[in-house]
Amino acid sequence: MALPPGVSEADFAAALTDFRAAVGDEWVFTSDEDIALYRDAYSPYWGEGEERLASAAVAPATVEQVQAVVRAANARRVPLYPISTGRNLAYGGSAPVYSGSVVLDLKRMNRVIEVNERSAYALVEPGVSYFDLYNYITEHNLDVWIDPPDPGWGSVIGNALDGGGGWTAAPFRDHFLVHCGMEVVLGDGDIVRTGMGAAPHAQTWQQNRWGYGPWVDGLFRQSNMGVVTKMGFWLMPRPEAFLSATVQVFNDRDIIPLFDILNLLENQHVINGSTGVFPGFGPNAAAWNLQLPIYGPANVITAQMDYAQAKFETIDGCRFIRNELIRTPLSAEDRARVRLVNFGIPDLSTFGMLGRTEQSPNPAGGHIGFSPIIPRTGEGLLEYRDFFRDNAAEVSGGENLGIIGPVFMTNWERSLVALIMFPISKDATANGKIRAAFRKWVTLAAERGWHEYRAPAVFQNDVAESYSFNDHALQRMREKIKDAIDPNGIISAGRYGVWPKHLRDA
Amino acid sequence: MALPPGVSEADFAAALTDFRAAVGDEWVFTSDEDIALYRDAYSPYWGEGEERLASAAVAPATVEQVQAVVRAANARRVPLYPISTGRNLAYGGSAPVYSGSVVLDLKRMNRVIEVNERSAYALVEPGVSYFDLYNYITEHNLDVWIDPPDPGWGSVIGNALDGGGGWTAAPFRDHFLVHCGMEVVLGDGDIVRTGMGAAPHAQTWQQNRWGYGPWVDGLFRQSNMGVVTKMGFWLMPRPEAFLSATVQVFNDRDIIPLFDILNLLENQHVINGSTGVFPGFGPNAAAWNLQLPIYGPANVITAQMDYAQAKFETIDGCRFIRNELIRTPLSAEDRARVRLVNFGIPDLSTFGMLGRTEQSPNPAGGHIGFSPIIPRTGEGLLEYRDFFRDNAAEVSGGENLGIIGPVFMTNWERSLVALIMFPISKDATANGKIRAAFRKWVTLAAERGWHEYRAPAVFQNDVAESYSFNDHALQRMREKIKDAIDPNGIISAGRYGVWPKHLRDA
Repeated sequence: MALPPGVSEADFAAALTDFRAAVGDEWVFTSDEDIALYRDAYSPYWGEGEERLASAAVAPATVEQVQAVVRAANARRVPLYPISTGRNLAYGGSAPVYSGSVVLDLKRMNRVIEVNERSAYALVEPGVSYFDLYNYITEHNLDVWIDPPDPGWGSVIGNALDGGGGWTAAPFRDHFLVHCGMEVVLGDGDIVRTGMGAAPHAQTWQQNRWGYGPWVDGLFRQSNMGVVTKMGFWLMPRPEAFLSATVQVFNDRDIIPLFDILNLLENQHVINGSTGVFPGFGPNAAAWNLQLPIYGPANVITAQMDYAQAKFETIDGCRFIRNELIRTPLSAEDRARVRLVNFGIPDLSTFGMLGRTEQSPNPAGGHIGFSPIIPRTGEGLLEYRDFFRDNAAEVSGGENLGIIGPVFMTNWERSLVALIMFPISKDATANGKIRAAFRKWVTLAAERGWHEYRAPAVFQNDVAESYSFNDHALQRMREKIKDAIDPNGIISAGRYGVWPKHLRDA
Repeated sequence: MALPPGVSEADFAAALTDFRAAVGDEWVFTSDEDIALYRDAYSPYWGEGEERLASAAVAPATVEQVQAVVRAANARRVPLYPISTGRNLAYGGSAPVYSGSVVLDLKRMNRVIEVNERSAYALVEPGVSYFDLYNYITEHNLDVWIDPPDPGWGSVIGNALDGGGGWTAAPFRDHFLVHCGMEVVLGDGDIVRTGMGAAPHAQTWQQNRWGYGPWVDGLFRQSNMGVVTKMGFWLMPRPEAFLSATVQVFNDRDIIPLFDILNLLENQHVINGSTGVFPGFGPNAAAWNLQLPIYGPANVITAQMDYAQAKFETIDGCRFIRNELIRTPLSAEDRARVRLVNFGIPDLSTFGMLGRTEQSPNPAGGHIGFSPIIPRTGEGLLEYRDFFRDNAAEVSGGENLGIIGPVFMTNWERSLVALIMFPISKDATANGKIRAAFRKWVTLAAERGWHEYRAPAVFQNDVAESYSFNDHALQRMREKIKDAIDPNGIISAGRYGVWPKHLRDA
């Protein structure tokens, strides 16, 4: 068992004793076998000295136990790394950003506290997965949908806090956006409730997101400012139907009017599904294909699709292919043929694509993503595509490193993400080349004004460094806040590039 | 000229000299006549010792001048109170929360930096009013709408920062929600850009709201954490048409299914306009009237209204009255008969209602609002209505104080605001009774879990105190942040109940 850096053997032993007193002996993990379960199977440093490893893990079951653990850690200056279900794969999984941290594993806090059908919201704990929430709603026959991301085993809270999203209708796809109210344990063990939850007899904690005065919730996004122990989410009442279409255009530069029309329709909220833009392949293929899904009452989405079709057909040669309208709840036949996550049903099928399954959760390799935000216009997309093509060989040192992309993600409201996927293996030489290429892309992209919205744990610092306006003013402000509300720097040191005072110069 | 509390005559003189050097002599105001212009005409303490008064005012024209003023104030510990256009009437106007502050008047920073039609956003300075932005868009023939609040002379930034809203379609009505990116001068004069603006070559500052890492924008809402000098806003592409209806139900408790259906339709985003619920008056009136506006393409909003009508007509005896569809841009005839703010056109007509006009901007009296968030259900509304009725006489000491309400505001997404209006005059005795009644309502409502989302300057402390969960944990967290990023407590001391360290115990 490794010691957390800067913590004496005696202090660590005392902290572990306090942890055991708080949560029970069986929920403090110190054996090598147990700690190994918290390794990141997709670490780009797998098996190397810089792999981020936990020193121990502790799994509280209640918010009071979280407070006790945080207080004990704070007293002995033991770094903690909270995880929800630990499934933040491709972004660091359950391994800490700062090696030697004790993983604060919240998977036992898995209560669905409330799902309110009339007001369409849920209040959950961090250990609640999309499967858990879906099952609760199904068992209670509630007529609301959740918005699952690709893998259903992830935490509803963890996904939202890391800036993740899903595949049903806007605005519900932006998981942080549609949260409403938090409970947070700060670095000194104090409990804060945000929004209307700051009212002692709150009746509207999940009905008004802003509350009164400065809104602090954003501080806990992609962050290390506290341990979120409860979070509310607005849910979508089950939409009665789903209608989709594919728009095809045949000239490369048709992507420009295609985006103008797509943006107009989305900004008017005429289209609400998770769209996608893909280049065609093969001699007679379209230059670009746009997937266009809409959720809502059958008569409304039919009118919306009619309106969209007329707009897109102003592009010369455009082909507009409408699919059959699908009603909900899904029939058994429809259920067998649709992509379940688009219908609010969590699954794990996405891993099939990348060689990971429920039966084989830790395959030899996985992928990590380089995800810059680029201007959401046809011109912006073409510039990035050409830039990637022109620089790919040099960045990869003339080798084929198996880098895939760019995949253009239009599913974030008003944003365009240009994803490049990097394969990760258990081979240090191959991983070293991938790391060098990843860092090179961060630098090259930043020179053009393209910066990532999210990053794997080991690259979070590099990306944070690239947001350098006015001598890193935003980062310096965050550091001041970090020092103020977690003065001993106990929680998730280094996450998203924010380091506590005592580690900043190291 | 009064001195700011705790500042010596020599220090204040030195600060004023620095201000003059920064902005020019003519933009530093110290005469009694000039300072009087910053009084709050609606102050509930008008002419009394506790009226909040400025000691001076300074009006920079650029962000560099703002930095210079803030640095000078910080060096001499001179309290500043930034205002945008100073039109935050009924919430304190242009008078500081902390008497003796120097008003930092940003009205000269009135540049519309960019309006992008294709991507439907604007980037503006604090002095830009809704009239300014509307005129810019009209002059440049851009096909986007703004979302005006009642009075068009207010600041686009100021309104958003104070938690204000307007009258067109969701989500654009929630002005803070649809902002995207800020530039802020902190208490030490440093400049921070948030979201993608933290990238030195940012191309997407107004296209992705979250950026990377902890999101700090919320800290500047209803706040005193910095001086916002630029802010981006998402705009709505002009909707092609507008359709409205009135739903009438005839039994008091029909409000329960009425709200259930309204909530369902809004949570599904089938209805996007600013709805309103009003009780009927007179012997043959409906018990409740619901106004139901929808914006969008004509065929889509017709389908949406059909769907809504079928839902509401499940309520026994419901009358559903549809109005004519109105197309945009408005014809001259339509323009003369509609409420302009519902069509993205700012005006001042709302003041007609309350006796204030452009010709008479400072009438003898005005109103302030008590605006608690209550549960958004029919049961919630009835409970509040009855509670108000049962307590009104006692709270007003058996007198008729001219208190009006409750008015139930359904225009905030998922929230219900139960507004009570209090008349404010220039009569100290009458104002004293109003203050006592206002504070009594704050206390009585808080006991039921009803708390305000916004408050007039002189009551901001009272309301902040009512959000007391866990010994005011949220407030204590905000104070730590305030002390960290504005250690001398220069900016807007006391705003929304957040006081800097040196004033907290006073």
